[in-house]
Amino acid sequence: MTTHANSLDAALRERARRVVPGGMWGHLHADKLPANYPQFFSRAEGCRLWDVDGRAYLDFMCSWGPNLLGHHHPEVEAAAERQARLGDCMNGPAQTMVELAELMVDTVAHADWAQLQKNGTDATTTCVTIARAATTRRKVLVARGAYHGAVPWCSPSLLGITAEDRAHIMFYDYNNAESLREAAAQAGDDLACIIASAFRHDLGRDQELPSRAFAETARAICDARGAALILDEVRAGFRLHLAGSWEPFGVKPDLAAWSKALANGYPLAAVTGRDWLKEAAAQIFVTGSFWCGAVPMAAAIATLTVLRRGGVIEHLAAMGEKLRVGISDLARRHEVGLRQSGPAQMPMVLFDDDADFRKGELFCRTALAKGVYFHPRHNMFLCAAHGEAEIEEALRAADAGLQAVAEHVRATT
Amino acid sequence: MTTHANSLDAALRERARRVVPGGMWGHLHADKLPANYPQFFSRAEGCRLWDVDGRAYLDFMCSWGPNLLGHHHPEVEAAAERQARLGDCMNGPAQTMVELAELMVDTVAHADWAQLQKNGTDATTTCVTIARAATTRRKVLVARGAYHGAVPWCSPSLLGITAEDRAHIMFYDYNNAESLREAAAQAGDDLACIIASAFRHDLGRDQELPSRAFAETARAICDARGAALILDEVRAGFRLHLAGSWEPFGVKPDLAAWSKALANGYPLAAVTGRDWLKEAAAQIFVTGSFWCGAVPMAAAIATLTVLRRGGVIEHLAAMGEKLRVGISDLARRHEVGLRQSGPAQMPMVLFDDDADFRKGELFCRTALAKGVYFHPRHNMFLCAAHGEAEIEEALRAADAGLQAVAEHVRATT
Repeated sequence: MTTHANSLDAALRERARRVVPGGMWGHLHADKLPANYPQFFSRAEGCRLWDVDGRAYLDFMCSWGPNLLGHHHPEVEAAAERQARLGDCMNGPAQTMVELAELMVDTVAHADWAQLQKNGTDATTTCVTIARAATTRRKVLVARGAYHGAVPWCSPSLLGITAEDRAHIMFYDYNNAESLREAAAQAGDDLACIIASAFRHDLGRDQELPSRAFAETARAICDARGAALILDEVRAGFRLHLAGSWEPFGVKPDLAAWSKALANGYPLAAVTGRDWLKEAAAQIFVTGSFWCGAVPMAAAIATLTVLRRGGVIEHLAAMGEKLRVGISDLARRHEVGLRQSGPAQMPMVLFDDDADFRKGELFCRTALAKGVYFHPRHNMFLCAAHGEAEIEEALRAADAGLQAVAEHVRATT
Repeated sequence: MTTHANSLDAALRERARRVVPGGMWGHLHADKLPANYPQFFSRAEGCRLWDVDGRAYLDFMCSWGPNLLGHHHPEVEAAAERQARLGDCMNGPAQTMVELAELMVDTVAHADWAQLQKNGTDATTTCVTIARAATTRRKVLVARGAYHGAVPWCSPSLLGITAEDRAHIMFYDYNNAESLREAAAQAGDDLACIIASAFRHDLGRDQELPSRAFAETARAICDARGAALILDEVRAGFRLHLAGSWEPFGVKPDLAAWSKALANGYPLAAVTGRDWLKEAAAQIFVTGSFWCGAVPMAAAIATLTVLRRGGVIEHLAAMGEKLRVGISDLARRHEVGLRQSGPAQMPMVLFDDDADFRKGELFCRTALAKGVYFHPRHNMFLCAAHGEAEIEEALRAADAGLQAVAEHVRATT
């Protein structure tokens, strides 16, 4: 079940440890996964991945979000290749910048304008900077445990971070309107913005969709106080509602941060915002060497064009629901207690009485040995290439994984 | 001489103003350039660009650095296309990550390891975070007027930035060893790092190569104090010395930030560092959705492979020198006073008695009308596609530009 010592993956990990700190950085480090998971990949197509040893996986992480339409989606690739033959990184943007900004304004309900970046962290940090510039205030209300990026003001690690980097960050509890009111009261006249994820998708805990009361309270506080409501759509964006994840409540943010799925895997991020923040957004200085790259913008235009024809998000939700119901049925049959939470198209499977994630890891490594790539702690992602047959294939692997968990429970109790 | 009101560029600017704050963001905003400069580009090849109205330019900005070998360099494109057919943004890196890290360690003299990112700002910020984590100290010494990126700790604008974001930033004067010693003394036991650009390339002023005394003093202070010396190679990297810009002095930094030219225009950044910082680099949390993208890494491997065969940097220096000598001769002939500073392959042309850059702008807009793209305030860049013929073409445009400046001086004095 573990990676073979003489595999190419093992050899590459050994070489990597010599020349890359820890052998790898960040959220894609395989040391946070069961031992049979590969670190290195050789190929991707649709919803399938191949590791460097040639093992194939039906993938439910989708590059941790970016793969929305399937790897090598023909329309996206055609658009990107066409632009690449012309030019990518030039002395200014191509026409694609205007077309993409127009398309985002036309697609995202709250958006009066758009600005483009590379990382999700660029987008969230730009939102905070715009809010502070527009309000000339400093306090930023952040949900406890939420992930908004990996720079000093928001990194999940405090290593290398100073206390001053967080001086104006104040915390509330997601989905708790009262805690939001208290934090806003504490911020007083210095409240610049509230930032909230599209839904609660903290690592290793049940996901929570936002309550209407929470979303409306966030909006009402910002309206009353002249502060900006920032919606972090980096992870959820374009998988829940094309016009914005809080549209079902009719709650429009003032600013939103986008990345991951925006260009179906091409590196791109965006901030969208409302008119009252446009002048501040024009006046702050944010930039990057590759932010005008025309190829990712062409890919994003193609991705949004596919999404706007309709059906994709509905398909993700239907396939996610099929997977969820199937896992639920299997869990009952194997008498294994588990919880599935949040939107079905971004599945989260956590086992009861599993604080150390042993059951989750056993489930995942058993499924992986059957060729299906799940994650034991982090929410997963569906893409448009997951069809009925792929969900059935996934359920056969889940069946084996749940049987292993059931046997483990019987052996240890 | 100005952009025609009925041009496609003008129409796109008008559309952009509606949906993009200020019509554009950051360093590629054309409002900082003479009025006949285009904002939008349709095509790039070698050292040439075409704007959306079909006008061609011999380009001396090279995408503000990234274009090192020429747009669409065949070896870089072949490597990128090969990897793109396999996979780019997957659940982990491809083998290219290890190969690139090994190649950087083998190429860059101080590098015991490498970590990869997207933006130059990611790389400089990661360097500071590593230095703070390793030393458990806070103070960062930065040269007054230096550009190290566009996030709160280093942005050239204070709009939307809080005082606390700069709480531990202290300043020295580039090339002034005494001011460096004073700043280090003020930082006391809390000195985490000194950051210095490869050379002084501040906007709108004469460039300065570092003095040996300055570089050695920075190294000596860090050695004596257990602090990290960070070399910001984002702009200069791979144009001065392949093994690192301070190698002629034998001064090795502890950390270096790279981006721009690293992958010949594909979005990539890197931190390289010495062994004593490897553990801290492994322990901090930095990541991004696209940092494992395999295509830019394949492009970087190809770029470094071309560079390691030799001749490119020498060619850039020789062509830069030919341009510099040619402009100097023309200036004498036209009796125009100007200064050319810094490394010849990153030209900077500033006119005497030109605090408002009027002469510089007249020179540039005249050259642009002749099809040559210079910059009046920012250092320029040569790429490998600039040959003897292109430099002669540039000098004909410079001749016209200098004649215009000479006429302007005669008319106004």
